Amino acid sequence: MNAGIISVGNELLMGFTLDSNSTWIARKLLDLGIKVDLKLTIADNEGEILEAFKTLSSRCDVILCTGGLGPTSDDVTKSAYCDFIQAGLELNEDYLEELKKKFEDRQLVMSDSNREQAMVPDKGETIPNSLGSALGLKYVDEENHIYVMPGVPSEMKRMMDETVLPELEQLPRDELHVTTIRLTGIMESALYDQVKDLLNDNIVKVAFLPGFLGVDVRLMSRDKDSLLELSGQFFDRLGNYVYAEDWETLEDAVGRLLIERGLTL
Amino acid sequence: MNAGIISVGNELLMGFTLDSNSTWIARKLLDLGIKVDLKLTIADNEGEILEAFKTLSSRCDVILCTGGLGPTSDDVTKSAYCDFIQAGLELNEDYLEELKKKFEDRQLVMSDSNREQAMVPDKGETIPNSLGSALGLKYVDEENHIYVMPGVPSEMKRMMDETVLPELEQLPRDELHVTTIRLTGIMESALYDQVKDLLNDNIVKVAFLPGFLGVDVRLMSRDKDSLLELSGQFFDRLGNYVYAEDWETLEDAVGRLLIERGLTL
Repeated sequence: MNAGIISVGNELLMGFTLDSNSTWIARKLLDLGIKVDLKLTIADNEGEILEAFKTLSSRCDVILCTGGLGPTSDDVTKSAYCDFIQAGLELNEDYLEELKKKFEDRQLVMSDSNREQAMVPDKGETIPNSLGSALGLKYVDEENHIYVMPGVPSEMKRMMDETVLPELEQLPRDELHVTTIRLTGIMESALYDQVKDLLNDNIVKVAFLPGFLGVDVRLMSRDKDSLLELSGQFFDRLGNYVYAEDWETLEDAVGRLLIERGLTL
Repeated sequence: MNAGIISVGNELLMGFTLDSNSTWIARKLLDLGIKVDLKLTIADNEGEILEAFKTLSSRCDVILCTGGLGPTSDDVTKSAYCDFIQAGLELNEDYLEELKKKFEDRQLVMSDSNREQAMVPDKGETIPNSLGSALGLKYVDEENHIYVMPGVPSEMKRMMDETVLPELEQLPRDELHVTTIRLTGIMESALYDQVKDLLNDNIVKVAFLPGFLGVDVRLMSRDKDSLLELSGQFFDRLGNYVYAEDWETLEDAVGRLLIERGLTL
């Protein structure tokens, strides 16, 4: 099972806003064992959003889209999504009442453009938004599971936690195992030369990620035994340079070793 | 003149790494008046990188790609780029000598995989890397300006500042004007209803960006006069809610107003 992410918003393409949404989503999916194969960041443009749905639907089981669901004219994601699933829009009376009540409770005047937010696709389902006024959208067929959420991070995260992730968790999928070995005191190229003969199978994917403090080697596999075997071989050859596994930092590792050995700095 | 950005790296798709590179690049391009139309984030996979070059080359004048230029087997961007521009690889003796010297100076042993970094495409040009060992790549034809840079942020930024941006600055291009009006005390939907009749032309693109403190309205246009006229109209109708323009924060605006009026808190 794989996924694709669509981030909609001119502000993302102008360098004003860091796309932390898609990173957050990718990490959550990884925890469920769902691999993200592709992320697309596109403008608030109906044609481009439609194209993005087409591209991802041919390649991904799960499509997660964020952004462009607001009440203003630059928000065209709902319309592109309706084009894609060939749905029309219909008024959801219940949601309109709910919106009216929300505005009344906050002693605010509800505007025409907020009324638009009660127009929902006549196919698929909506996802409740407990923090804002834009409903999320959901459409499932034999090919894809499609979820569309607002770009406001708090609203997106709430929808993911409350609705999307629990649903994805129910889908049949292979487990995905990931481990990170953190090394320091050896250059990426030298490290690579010492283990490259071990990298011939494709069962375990290995990434070398150089950083300020050293190199992280990330191993990922659907097959836990192969992953454990390869990481064991890495340890045999490179153990002297390994300071930590997974998300322990260099500082944490030094602290841990000092405590284990009854030492202080 | 428009641009597309390709970010290569499994770590970006696994949610381990925030793609701040593409945001930084987009902002720099905007400052030059070059609009980014599309960002693709893809795996360290030769076929996918090639596809990404194909997709962007049909849509963008400028293509900026980062990541996957390292010395290890998971780094396949150079190879995909060569496929795309139909280049072979040849040894650059001068660069090999330079690399050897770098390693000697630092009293390090140069590995076989570092030697690979002296293999350069036999078409196009390379971009010097004053901070690391991976050369950047450049290929220009009648259709596209293509630049490929490492994913390590410091190396990418140095190449952009030293080589890519000065070159792009020379290209003929229309000016692009952007202004941001920051409002508080009015909801996005109510604000929108007050100005939506002004939004009928497409000469000025308008984005409504709700946040914690209020709504930012961003206006963008190739035509400065139209942009000034529309922002003036926005001020006439919404002036009471405007606290700042462009990148002044609410705190800065309050400080500025206090100083202007000789007041303190």
